[in-house]
Amino acid sequence: MNETHRSREHVRIPAAVVSGTGYGGVELLRLLSRHPGFDLIEVTARSAHGRRVCDVFPQLPDLTVSITERVERAELVFLAQPDHAAIEAVPALLAAGRRVVDLSAAFRLRAPSLYPEWYGYEHPAPALLEEAVYGLPELHRAALAEARLVACPGCYPTAAVLALAPALAHALIEPGIVVDAKSGLSGAGRGLTLETHFAEASEDVSAYGLGGHRHWPEIVQALAAVAYRGATQRAEAATPAPLRVSFIPHLVPMARGILATCYADLRSGVSADAVREVYEAFYQGEPFVHVLAQPPHTKFATGTNHAFVHPVVDARAGRLVVVAAIDNLGKGAAGQAVQCANGMYHLPETLGLESGGVYP
Amino acid sequence: MNETHRSREHVRIPAAVVSGTGYGGVELLRLLSRHPGFDLIEVTARSAHGRRVCDVFPQLPDLTVSITERVERAELVFLAQPDHAAIEAVPALLAAGRRVVDLSAAFRLRAPSLYPEWYGYEHPAPALLEEAVYGLPELHRAALAEARLVACPGCYPTAAVLALAPALAHALIEPGIVVDAKSGLSGAGRGLTLETHFAEASEDVSAYGLGGHRHWPEIVQALAAVAYRGATQRAEAATPAPLRVSFIPHLVPMARGILATCYADLRSGVSADAVREVYEAFYQGEPFVHVLAQPPHTKFATGTNHAFVHPVVDARAGRLVVVAAIDNLGKGAAGQAVQCANGMYHLPETLGLESGGVYP
Amino acid sequence: MNETHRSREHVRIPAAVVSGTGYGGVELLRLLSRHPGFDLIEVTARSAHGRRVCDVFPQLPDLTVSITERVERAELVFLAQPDHAAIEAVPALLAAGRRVVDLSAAFRLRAPSLYPEWYGYEHPAPALLEEAVYGLPELHRAALAEARLVACPGCYPTAAVLALAPALAHALIEPGIVVDAKSGLSGAGRGLTLETHFAEASEDVSAYGLGGHRHWPEIVQALAAVAYRGATQRAEAATPAPLRVSFIPHLVPMARGILATCYADLRSGVSADAVREVYEAFYQGEPFVHVLAQPPHTKFATGTNHAFVHPVVDARAGRLVVVAAIDNLGKGAAGQAVQCANGMYHLPETLGLESGGVYP
Amino acid sequence: MNETHRSREHVRIPAAVVSGTGYGGVELLRLLSRHPGFDLIEVTARSAHGRRVCDVFPQLPDLTVSITERVERAELVFLAQPDHAAIEAVPALLAAGRRVVDLSAAFRLRAPSLYPEWYGYEHPAPALLEEAVYGLPELHRAALAEARLVACPGCYPTAAVLALAPALAHALIEPGIVVDAKSGLSGAGRGLTLETHFAEASEDVSAYGLGGHRHWPEIVQALAAVAYRGATQRAEAATPAPLRVSFIPHLVPMARGILATCYADLRSGVSADAVREVYEAFYQGEPFVHVLAQPPHTKFATGTNHAFVHPVVDARAGRLVVVAAIDNLGKGAAGQAVQCANGMYHLPETLGLESGGVYP
Repeated sequence: MNETHRSREHVRIPAAVVSGTGYGGVELLRLLSRHPGFDLIEVTARSAHGRRVCDVFPQLPDLTVSITERVERAELVFLAQPDHAAIEAVPALLAAGRRVVDLSAAFRLRAPSLYPEWYGYEHPAPALLEEAVYGLPELHRAALAEARLVACPGCYPTAAVLALAPALAHALIEPGIVVDAKSGLSGAGRGLTLETHFAEASEDVSAYGLGGHRHWPEIVQALAAVAYRGATQRAEAATPAPLRVSFIPHLVPMARGILATCYADLRSGVSADAVREVYEAFYQGEPFVHVLAQPPHTKFATGTNHAFVHPVVDARAGRLVVVAAIDNLGKGAAGQAVQCANGMYHLPETLGLESGGVYP
Repeated sequence: MNETHRSREHVRIPAAVVSGTGYGGVELLRLLSRHPGFDLIEVTARSAHGRRVCDVFPQLPDLTVSITERVERAELVFLAQPDHAAIEAVPALLAAGRRVVDLSAAFRLRAPSLYPEWYGYEHPAPALLEEAVYGLPELHRAALAEARLVACPGCYPTAAVLALAPALAHALIEPGIVVDAKSGLSGAGRGLTLETHFAEASEDVSAYGLGGHRHWPEIVQALAAVAYRGATQRAEAATPAPLRVSFIPHLVPMARGILATCYADLRSGVSADAVREVYEAFYQGEPFVHVLAQPPHTKFATGTNHAFVHPVVDARAGRLVVVAAIDNLGKGAAGQAVQCANGMYHLPETLGLESGGVYP
Repeated sequence: MNETHRSREHVRIPAAVVSGTGYGGVELLRLLSRHPGFDLIEVTARSAHGRRVCDVFPQLPDLTVSITERVERAELVFLAQPDHAAIEAVPALLAAGRRVVDLSAAFRLRAPSLYPEWYGYEHPAPALLEEAVYGLPELHRAALAEARLVACPGCYPTAAVLALAPALAHALIEPGIVVDAKSGLSGAGRGLTLETHFAEASEDVSAYGLGGHRHWPEIVQALAAVAYRGATQRAEAATPAPLRVSFIPHLVPMARGILATCYADLRSGVSADAVREVYEAFYQGEPFVHVLAQPPHTKFATGTNHAFVHPVVDARAGRLVVVAAIDNLGKGAAGQAVQCANGMYHLPETLGLESGGVYP
Repeated sequence: MNETHRSREHVRIPAAVVSGTGYGGVELLRLLSRHPGFDLIEVTARSAHGRRVCDVFPQLPDLTVSITERVERAELVFLAQPDHAAIEAVPALLAAGRRVVDLSAAFRLRAPSLYPEWYGYEHPAPALLEEAVYGLPELHRAALAEARLVACPGCYPTAAVLALAPALAHALIEPGIVVDAKSGLSGAGRGLTLETHFAEASEDVSAYGLGGHRHWPEIVQALAAVAYRGATQRAEAATPAPLRVSFIPHLVPMARGILATCYADLRSGVSADAVREVYEAFYQGEPFVHVLAQPPHTKFATGTNHAFVHPVVDARAGRLVVVAAIDNLGKGAAGQAVQCANGMYHLPETLGLESGGVYP
């Protein structure tokens, strides 16, 4: 079927959300409940079968679809499950001819060997790792248009990669990189832990994952790919030096949002003007990535799929500092998933994602 | 011109927002920037002339209209100014054939004599007080459809009236009423005060306005009107006893949201079932008011025009307790203004207001 | 032994905290770790035996006492356990000659019959209900000085009783009372629930316990006792009419603090001046209860044992409104427990409780 | 007079706080109001003359001293004023034989030339810059004991220097350093700005000062001094290479607290064990600096003078990462000032600073 034709005719793609009761899943429901191109006909979850979504989540009063056990009819399936469930579900969904946008980490890493080290399991479907398209439209737009399986990036990698991609693609920086990221508590998931108890998390900031966070290999993989592609485009003989990335996430007392502050030594001779020009050109025409002349606030992005990037040269220290702000549930999860799906079906990439930031 | 016809043809009404840089105004910009029925062609403010809205408010990256000094072309004008500016602007706007949705308090009270007492000024246009329609569509739907001038209710009155209207309309309660309301800090406006400094307001709750808050007469006026209408509909000989309302607002450490907890003695013989039935019937079919069987959270409403109402009978004390939750900038301000405008132009009342709650 | 003598000699009372790992317990540890009159020699808990408190709670770096399984040597025991554990522990502790300050609800209610209804268990020690002194020093100072067993009031009852006691003792109000209370999340305990997840509780206010909160009978009992005592002192023939109390607690997004806003019809003829005089006289000389001429903020009390009370007359509605602010872990729990213990040992009531509010 | 003698006799030093109405000043009042070694006899401010402190700040109900215009009798003066006022006041105070603990930046920098560049004024008293002791007791204990004028460090420098001093003193790291700091809103002062409005700052994180924050030269000066001293102690021939410091502060939605996450390349051959040993030895016996084996939370330090330091080796990137947490108003301002004053008068350094963290 010709997708372009179909969208013109206003036939909406039948879509499903699997396991929609985590924060990423609920945000997907919110976005899809009114999407002009997708018809949310199925919502599945492990519990609450038979209950209407609006009864489980009063904040979605118009979503009267009932929760079921498994996907039966949807053509497009959004998976908002843990890794293992996704790994189990994807092969069958693809075999049935459905297309899948997966929000878990199950298909994000290219090298199967990384899974035992970082996720504690042998990956059972390395061929799908090969096939899966990394769902960052700004970098993989063409591949998304044909993808059967999209692996949506993690929230931290999205922020870090949007912040650093222009600099790496254009070889503005040395390979030593620090990503200091600050996340709201929804990033820790809806599960119950002492760390996310309001009384513990309010009036508090802390670093975590100092021994190695699972988003580290994903960040390194994505940044290295950008650097490599840039070197290839410049027809450089040598491959870029391996990146040396420190990534430290922090929890800050807010529900939503990620701010990534990224540091790298500036290559000699690179001016602040050059940095600015590279960044503006790189994101020229992107509907969701905005290069700002002021430091971004995470609140700019709340409830949206927008990302705000602010590169500055710290001349005293000879460093590039780039601050990026996203909504971890928007561009960092559900918004990006919808943006990818729009691309998969040749719909306008902004469809259903037009809202401005919920401010204040 | 026939509005119904026009909306069918997808001709959007040219609209303006005057003084769009307070919190209510910015929320209006967010809602109108993508409204299918209104074309936001003008935004005026006292400063920032010539700058694009998206440059002043990066959270609205797609709103590229430039800020101007005065309304020139719009047919529908939303006023998000202080009272005095609204009083000055409205007569000329109406004279020029425009329709006005005013978010200030300038035209909310029916009795001109209340203005000197509560607002400190003589009202210069008492005839317009007479004409203005109080913009609560659930109670004044018919009048809105013909209105030239809509006075949007205050945020507290909206919550209190939605909570108590069914009980008063159906004479379930005695005239002694307590409205204990909890508001987020955006309700205090974008102006700078020590009370709204983060370090003062965080980790804090306090009552204010104990000597008399300006929303008190508005609440009393609106509740009394409901009681009177109910008595009239029941063809009662006597007018209802005057209401005896205590209204105490509180500031709680959140940006958005109002929770109104309302207390009144239950009339003898009124059962919990009867209460429930009255409330459900009263709001039957309303797209934005939801009678819940659980206590509502303000977060249910964040970023939306929805209101959640939960009536319970406190049998031990013989009282009706009703809890209502809204977003003070949504149903309490900008959302309601858009809902009113939809009604004025015979558009579906939900147009442009379909989003579910931004959660978490 | 002569307590007065002992305190003069600066011999500190050996004290224990049982189950010190909930929020009330940790606050007790903080207060007792530097108390000049009590020597915190034992801390027990169900887990972490053998670990030092400072290793479990880095925020108490100087508290190097190790956690043990049971109290062996202390003369004074603070219980910060759930009801059932307290009920089990108290008889043995008393039999061993120790004195007990219990922070649970196990000994707060006088009528054994209330326990099955409100707490779901038959109380096994009704004689101790009779003996236990309700630990509100402002009302029971004399009894505390001799008490073997002190039942520390709940946080909500403390706020409500401090707010209303003067009005009831002096018959300023009618028996219909509304207590609308707003609590920080630490009041919900350190256990893990969805309600206390930061992402759920932040930017949110909600009412709970609408079907009846366990602090309701405690509030009624304490308020009725005050009214009865007042009537007795005035040698009134009739006992006061039964109180008709609605009590609705709310959760607000802060870690600590309770604000209780209390409403009651003013008896005819009672002036605002009379109210003010009664309140000031009632709390004259109290080191921890402060009658303010401005609305109190919960932040005034943070980290302290202070309570702030602000009575106002709502002349339009003929009501008395009293706002009271405390720290739910201070005057609402651990601070009050220490104040009681000071009284039990004839120490200055303020000993170890001198800190001002942690502001901002 | 012999200070040591005097403290033994329990004669308290008469002390004053100048301009006590900013957040640092109020915290000083809280700490000094019950300090066993200092007698707070005077509080001055630009306004509120004649009012009692407890009436201006109800959170300090026991501080009944009245606000005056100028210091008349105190021997020890804490200055909590802006730079210019401090510069003006200090020479006269010293000339009158008083000792001064200054919380402003007026005497922090050694090189007079830095003032025009970073603070916009020519420093009028370069000799006092020479004389002033930088009030970080962990590094300048001996000098403090004799100081007439103490310049209390800024909040960010305190956190950064405590985090990195051991590594620099023992040459564990290369000169390229990143300090990514997260501060609560009280750090922005009590003045009114849009940035500190609750509705703007809540649910938000942002970086600021990207063009150069005034604490940058202070951090560089203090870190360089530590590195230099270390090299001297090791009798190295060469002076250490100049440090290359990027310092980016961030605002996070909490009232109090600073978390500084510091990054530097580890010198080759330095093991994680060596790092740990150096840090533990460096702070061995320090009452306020605690080397933790877990990532510190700012909440550990709330309301206290404690600092928590957690050094980890990021072996994948070859970096040292050190996280330090303090209360910006405690160890970052008023607590440290009191600690310094204790040292100046040969009192136990912990006097009046014994409280554990206010948790949760």
